[in-house]
Amino acid sequence: MKLGFIGLGIMGQPMAGHLLAAGHTVFAHSRSGVPQALLDAGAKACANPAEVARQADIIITMVPDTPHVEKVLFGEHGVAEGLQGAAKGKVVVDMSSISPIATKGFAEKIRALGADYLDAPVSGGEVGAKQATLTIMVGGSEATFNQVLPVFQHMGKNITLIGEAGSGQTCKVANQIVVALTIEAVGEALLFASKAGADPAKVRQALMGGLATSRILELHGERMIKRTFNPGFRIELHQKDLNLALEGARAMGLSLPNTASTQQLMSSCVALGGAGWDHSGLVKALEHAGNHVVAQG
Amino acid sequence: MKLGFIGLGIMGQPMAGHLLAAGHTVFAHSRSGVPQALLDAGAKACANPAEVARQADIIITMVPDTPHVEKVLFGEHGVAEGLQGAAKGKVVVDMSSISPIATKGFAEKIRALGADYLDAPVSGGEVGAKQATLTIMVGGSEATFNQVLPVFQHMGKNITLIGEAGSGQTCKVANQIVVALTIEAVGEALLFASKAGADPAKVRQALMGGLATSRILELHGERMIKRTFNPGFRIELHQKDLNLALEGARAMGLSLPNTASTQQLMSSCVALGGAGWDHSGLVKALEHAGNHVVAQG
Repeated sequence: MKLGFIGLGIMGQPMAGHLLAAGHTVFAHSRSGVPQALLDAGAKACANPAEVARQADIIITMVPDTPHVEKVLFGEHGVAEGLQGAAKGKVVVDMSSISPIATKGFAEKIRALGADYLDAPVSGGEVGAKQATLTIMVGGSEATFNQVLPVFQHMGKNITLIGEAGSGQTCKVANQIVVALTIEAVGEALLFASKAGADPAKVRQALMGGLATSRILELHGERMIKRTFNPGFRIELHQKDLNLALEGARAMGLSLPNTASTQQLMSSCVALGGAGWDHSGLVKALEHAGNHVVAQG
Repeated sequence: MKLGFIGLGIMGQPMAGHLLAAGHTVFAHSRSGVPQALLDAGAKACANPAEVARQADIIITMVPDTPHVEKVLFGEHGVAEGLQGAAKGKVVVDMSSISPIATKGFAEKIRALGADYLDAPVSGGEVGAKQATLTIMVGGSEATFNQVLPVFQHMGKNITLIGEAGSGQTCKVANQIVVALTIEAVGEALLFASKAGADPAKVRQALMGGLATSRILELHGERMIKRTFNPGFRIELHQKDLNLALEGARAMGLSLPNTASTQQLMSSCVALGGAGWDHSGLVKALEHAGNHVVAQG
């Protein structure tokens, strides 16, 4: 199958690599050029997104944020330009994590050109991208989902069609709300226990057996205790995701009190110089002089 | 072994039943009398806590809150009265969920009489009590923990010595912080997704594969989608636990912002008539006219 891949960063490069390894032809473009490793694996470098869209049948985008997707799709020499007159049967698949509201508009504009559109953001981070174990949350039509599914299966494991266009992005925002607020919960609990004189490592161990157990308690709880705050997933990226949640909540008239306070704690971390900390570093916004999560023994 | 059990409610009755079934002699007392089922199983009814303390070597208390423990231990015809002159080698084991700060004082007073003290609160609820699968979080000395461990093993599975007196209660409070705040997180996420037009059941399913996964997403997320808010664990009990967290945080000079806001959401539920709802009903405090978690299809 002739595939296109636009955006070859920490996530995009290994994902495109899996598609090449599976024997697909991949037309690739990235702001900073196509990495040599992908060229060596057979990737065909394109000068711009329009060129990718002219060559490929399924065009995947994997870029940082909403404005980047908008520019790649609808900017000068963008995907929309390449689809002109040759859109029929083609699919644009945005795997970036961006605004669900903007996504609905992007899908409408691409469909108006005659192609179809899926939003398919992922979770699992760099490790999931490298190991091809990403969780993929998809919005769009069932027929197009089934058409692209074999491509998704080269990159991920838990692949779910959530609903209409935008639903994949909505699901990703929901995911990021749960992850951020669970990290915050584990931070409050371990800090409380530590300050009260209990060993946070033993508390974490005891909690893992019961109702409080979670992947976050396991992974991020351990990071808080061992004080290993190198990313992982950077606070500034998670802050962007919570901004999408709060922007959406405002538009829909919803109140998300703990998302709001957690977003503020992330802002505290950024103010403390922690934009690049792993998101488990959120616990530092709760800590004060003399009050830290301290392992014993 | 001669055991004592004070407090034979929803939790205490099945726990005492397991001790009888294991062949122990159990001296029992409860404000409302000893249930017939326990008498039939061989429990020896005592008129008051002092009588239990005179007869038994290990005296377990399982009552609702801090003032009840204080009354059972140090009130008229309390455990302390029964220990007078016969305390040596005996152990008081409080399995209630109460204040870590008060617990330290209770332990000191019991030790001053010549007995030892463990705080050993549990999680796992009525189901865990009936199935003898409770998580037990213990504070006290290692020697006494090892002495009582075979008794704990009749009632629970994941049994951890956390540290000094009070550490068991501290760990339980940490557990309740994580559980409440994770329920709240799942509530915000499913409400956001539902209001944005995505099927919350599919969102829950997609999230279960990744970093957002937790026992709470599995159990309480399903309750929110199916709207089954019969307890389970009542909001008014969880509210008590968060009050212990905030009381402790004030005493220690800690800030627990999301525990505070979640405790307020529980107060909203109580104001809505929901003191007796399951704690997953917390999501109702986030819902407004027309905004609910609504399953599709």
